Amino acid sequence: MNDQEKINTAHAQTNLVIRQVINFWEANNKAITAFFNKHEDDVYLGEVAPGRNRGIYLLAHLIATNDALLPLFNLGEKLFPELAPLASEAESAVPFELSIADLRNKWETLNITLAGHFKNLTAEQWLSRHNSVSDEDFALDPTRNKLNVLMNRTSHENYHRGQLIFLNEKVLTV
Amino acid sequence: MNDQEKINTAHAQTNLVIRQVINFWEANNKAITAFFNKHEDDVYLGEVAPGRNRGIYLLAHLIATNDALLPLFNLGEKLFPELAPLASEAESAVPFELSIADLRNKWETLNITLAGHFKNLTAEQWLSRHNSVSDEDFALDPTRNKLNVLMNRTSHENYHRGQLIFLNEKVLTV
Repeated sequence: MNDQEKINTAHAQTNLVIRQVINFWEANNKAITAFFNKHEDDVYLGEVAPGRNRGIYLLAHLIATNDALLPLFNLGEKLFPELAPLASEAESAVPFELSIADLRNKWETLNITLAGHFKNLTAEQWLSRHNSVSDEDFALDPTRNKLNVLMNRTSHENYHRGQLIFLNEKVLTV
Repeated sequence: MNDQEKINTAHAQTNLVIRQVINFWEANNKAITAFFNKHEDDVYLGEVAPGRNRGIYLLAHLIATNDALLPLFNLGEKLFPELAPLASEAESAVPFELSIADLRNKWETLNITLAGHFKNLTAEQWLSRHNSVSDEDFALDPTRNKLNVLMNRTSHENYHRGQLIFLNEKVLTV
């Protein structure tokens, strides 16, 4: 293998792993979308377990947390800043009047917007710092990059999907 | 930048992303470990929600699913083959007699074993096929590699952690 082939191989490896993380994000989005299209709207108004969050709140929470990726990745302003408090606050602290239909639309719009940005980011951009870490701290820990945030944000969707499946579904074992 | 520097930079990027996935796995293991060390043992004998899995079952299920990484990654046989049915079967179908203390030990032993293997795998090995995909299918889809499995397996831990926190904890918003 000559030097140029070695460079190409190494770049292909990096790009492959970046694609895997984006695929992982898209697959989890799809699972959340499928879940919120599966039942009658009323089902999502219930709590996932006694005294726990409602399904509709969790969808708003996922929109709010993912929407924050736009400024965090330097890709623009949040699409739905009015939902931003739901990223960190309980539903009781931040009542909202949106319907499941509204939230489904916002979720879809947000995913399309993010996917459009993500496909244009280079490997260097994915591995550059996100906006809540300083240059100094990033130099100390280069894992505090955008790709790492996306991986963790995707897993956060899965954390809540584990809860959502309790909503009017049969007991699942896995 | 000369060719050798370009090769080094590209390799460093690939290794960084691989390290991020391993860190992600370790951080999630740590969160599961902390959760199962937090309460009195009896707490884990409860169901996470009415009619749903018990905490103790979910720990056994996580051990069984992660133990399967050893043969899947060609790293050896499962440490706890007796738990293997719990990777895919409901607790009612596969009664088991282990205590939380036994399971904590097995979880710890498994994590140490896997971490020992993981630190020795090269980038090429991480990006090579796992044992449940054929050479032919892997050629068609090179994302079916070991690193991708580890990322998804880690998110699977987080899926169940989202359920486990319902066990005798205050309502959490995020």
